[in-house]
Amino acid sequence: PRHEDEDDEDTFKILVATDIHLGYMEKDPVRGNDTFVTFNEILDHARKNEVDFILLGGDLFHDNKPSRKTVHSCLESLRKYCMGDRPVQFEILSDQAVNFHYSKFPWVNYQDENLNISIPVFSIHGNHDDPTGADALCALDILSCAGLLNHFGRSTSVEKIDISPILLRKGRTKIALYGLGAIPDERLYRMFVNKQVTMLRPKEDEDSWFNLFVIHQNRSKHGATNYIPEQFLDDFINLVVWGHEHECKIAPFKNEQQRFYISQPGSSVVTSLSPGEAVKKHIGLLHVKGKKMKMEKIALETVRTFHIEDIVLADHPDLFNPDNPNVTQAIQAFCMEKVELMLDTAERERLGNPRQPEKPIIRLRVDYAGGFEPFSVHRFSQKYMHRVANPKDIIHFFRRREQKEKKEIDLNFEKLVSRPAEGTTLRVEDLVKQYFQTAEKKVQLSLLTERGMGEAVQEFVDKEEKDAIEELVKFQLEKTQKFLKERRTDAVEEKIDEEVMVVFCCCCFFLELISSIMPRIFFPYLSS
Amino acid sequence: PRHEDEDDEDTFKILVATDIHLGYMEKDPVRGNDTFVTFNEILDHARKNEVDFILLGGDLFHDNKPSRKTVHSCLESLRKYCMGDRPVQFEILSDQAVNFHYSKFPWVNYQDENLNISIPVFSIHGNHDDPTGADALCALDILSCAGLLNHFGRSTSVEKIDISPILLRKGRTKIALYGLGAIPDERLYRMFVNKQVTMLRPKEDEDSWFNLFVIHQNRSKHGATNYIPEQFLDDFINLVVWGHEHECKIAPFKNEQQRFYISQPGSSVVTSLSPGEAVKKHIGLLHVKGKKMKMEKIALETVRTFHIEDIVLADHPDLFNPDNPNVTQAIQAFCMEKVELMLDTAERERLGNPRQPEKPIIRLRVDYAGGFEPFSVHRFSQKYMHRVANPKDIIHFFRRREQKEKKEIDLNFEKLVSRPAEGTTLRVEDLVKQYFQTAEKKVQLSLLTERGMGEAVQEFVDKEEKDAIEELVKFQLEKTQKFLKERRTDAVEEKIDEEVMVVFCCCCFFLELISSIMPRIFFPYLSS
Repeated sequence: PRHEDEDDEDTFKILVATDIHLGYMEKDPVRGNDTFVTFNEILDHARKNEVDFILLGGDLFHDNKPSRKTVHSCLESLRKYCMGDRPVQFEILSDQAVNFHYSKFPWVNYQDENLNISIPVFSIHGNHDDPTGADALCALDILSCAGLLNHFGRSTSVEKIDISPILLRKGRTKIALYGLGAIPDERLYRMFVNKQVTMLRPKEDEDSWFNLFVIHQNRSKHGATNYIPEQFLDDFINLVVWGHEHECKIAPFKNEQQRFYISQPGSSVVTSLSPGEAVKKHIGLLHVKGKKMKMEKIALETVRTFHIEDIVLADHPDLFNPDNPNVTQAIQAFCMEKVELMLDTAERERLGNPRQPEKPIIRLRVDYAGGFEPFSVHRFSQKYMHRVANPKDIIHFFRRREQKEKKEIDLNFEKLVSRPAEGTTLRVEDLVKQYFQTAEKKVQLSLLTERGMGEAVQEFVDKEEKDAIEELVKFQLEKTQKFLKERRTDAVEEKIDEEVMVVFCCCCFFLELISSIMPRIFFPYLSS
Repeated sequence: PRHEDEDDEDTFKILVATDIHLGYMEKDPVRGNDTFVTFNEILDHARKNEVDFILLGGDLFHDNKPSRKTVHSCLESLRKYCMGDRPVQFEILSDQAVNFHYSKFPWVNYQDENLNISIPVFSIHGNHDDPTGADALCALDILSCAGLLNHFGRSTSVEKIDISPILLRKGRTKIALYGLGAIPDERLYRMFVNKQVTMLRPKEDEDSWFNLFVIHQNRSKHGATNYIPEQFLDDFINLVVWGHEHECKIAPFKNEQQRFYISQPGSSVVTSLSPGEAVKKHIGLLHVKGKKMKMEKIALETVRTFHIEDIVLADHPDLFNPDNPNVTQAIQAFCMEKVELMLDTAERERLGNPRQPEKPIIRLRVDYAGGFEPFSVHRFSQKYMHRVANPKDIIHFFRRREQKEKKEIDLNFEKLVSRPAEGTTLRVEDLVKQYFQTAEKKVQLSLLTERGMGEAVQEFVDKEEKDAIEELVKFQLEKTQKFLKERRTDAVEEKIDEEVMVVFCCCCFFLELISSIMPRIFFPYLSS
């Protein structure tokens, strides 16, 4: 939808999106193409709406080292949608050599004489696609070097950050665009506390700028220092675009204390089967005129539908009696009925866009506390093989009896472990440290049993080695989380055994070590 | 050097290079940057000579999946040297949708309205950077999708190949440019024999075209069908640019039977320590006017110098007596003297280009047949740590007594194993098959001992896992080759034991299998 009244020479039109996660599940025969389809939809919205530029909040790529196919598809889309003759109508007033100092071509792509850019893309990096390795390059730098994206908001120091804005002007509207690529939350938290984060401001007419800040961090509290409190951010900011959080809360929400607005666009693909991801996905069309702004929501039409529901078996004493020998069949029949209803709803909600994938993602979480037994998920999944996109994890059994009485431990393990293995030595350490601190020393922790590990290994034999370590760590953490929860409800609260934690940590390191040296160590024995 | 008389509107000037192997040894602290420096030198020659285009003969990348740094550096160089305002002065007469049918942007990059290309690069792929995976993409396709290279000569069938030329015209000169990306030699050999390779010719004025063919295959005979005999190529061709072979033989050599010329530019980096790589490296400046051509040699100035010499201890009975208890010291002193002389020569031959790396590559091959013992290479290497680029493999001991009496087995294992591990299942099979057929059933083969394997494993523990398999297979093959040679000289010729060969083959498969599943199998035991 065009807004003629706003298409004037003083109004910036900015397409805002984040967490596109290109390449997520790319090898899945059903879902493999989802991220690319939606990325094209987003770029197409940008073109149709004739935006001035696209602003991305990080995690354009799902993998730190995206596959050749993913890089190729991304280059293809950017070249197709973002190049062309339509002139870019804003200018850059700041020193581009400062804004893009780490680039081999330290200037904005649309001003490069050799490239015909119609829609510049500005992006910070997320935790999934952050710079790594001796060369400190990230996947965005490939796009940047190819002239198809402007990677900004990169800090080089781990102690102190000065954020220099890109100063943009269109007619009488001036935007100071601040960006900060993903940094481990605790480190950034510490830097904020120590006053080591400075947002530089233009010298002239300080108050005439619309100050836009894009960030990619935990917004919700995952432990004492494992997120960035909104009040840490400077109050001269007008709008924060908050990446990383996948739930779409794109309508600007006012932080009354700081008096700025926060827009959380959310991801454009479902990467975890949690309620937040089931919220309808949107991107934003941000209009800025003078110091006024308006965020227009654009519903994404190509996102695979996702429905999630919970059943608590103990809430239906009339239906399920744990002493009845046929109770498992009754539960299974009930679940099937639920899934059918969810499939109906999913079908009704489809938007009619021919590019929207047909099979929905369905998740039914079954709380079987109260003496019930889980039924075979494998057989259940078989029935939905051709009707849902995620037959293997359609049902999730858990036990949360007495949960209402006790405060749930608020650990988001999805986020903690969702990034790939590069430079993992440091990462696992961080991870365990986060875990440790998050647990707030209120709970007791124990190592996994060998049996648990064996099952995990069994599961991972079919997968890519690259994913195996990540998955294994994830598995470990989830197991431990489950253990923690059960302990919290069933037993008295005991203080955490720090030594056990250290063993857990060592165990993680050991796993990685093994994965790298194993093949060589065992050659002589196995080849004889 | 400019040739004013040839800079006319009817003369094509083409920079010809091949086997640049970007990223070769990129992690080596001394040699890591060599390939990038020389690539920039090559592009700079192209720019200074104002060529019409660059023609590459494959293996621009060393790894099938080049690192992020390598891709980034390559994009940087191409964007820096090949974009700009100088107009391209030739036109394309053929149907570009046919020439570039597998590209997402099936037209030559310099005609893209959104890209300002001053030097188009045309490249076939080599065996190192050939298309792989379900998406059948290769590293060149990333460059191609970014608009910085024109990947051509790609065939999609494995049974039949029709090569459609890119038809180019500059003034009155017309070139039909044929390309054929690397294909396993035996498969292509078979297709040629079965008349399944067709070079299409322009319908009009068939004889008015200069027919230029670029190919990336074995040129020298590695077994009966493991190369492409020159006489397989059509005799209407005027010039063949032959990639893959690393020795520089760039001056066009006439095949009297077929009456065409062959130019073999050779690699621009030393990737194996063999005599062919010690030949001075050049690229070519090819002038084509009407049907006349001239190949001007351009010496590369940034290639690291490489010197190789052989010593046969048994040829110096006056100096070395195997019964003398101090003979090993005498040999060591002699080798040291040799190396010093080679270092002197290397220093004198340096070209004065500030970008040429200082430390030379030195290889001294010592034939210790005749009752001598090798000395400790480790201690010897230590002395040259700061003076040569390859201290660890400066000395190579071998035994070749009586070699002169018997024809050497002509196996080129460097080439057989030089490609990376992707899709290795098929490759190892091919490899073993090649090996098998190459051995011509005249020699007996035996498995390696466990001890040999153990040593290999010891060596590889420090290396990247990615390289380990490749190296291990290479090690195996070399060991086996040595074994073969010794058998040929020391014993009667026996017919090959096919079953042993099959075991060898299985062994290779097994190694790969281990490398992928090992980490998971052993988790339960090691984590308990």
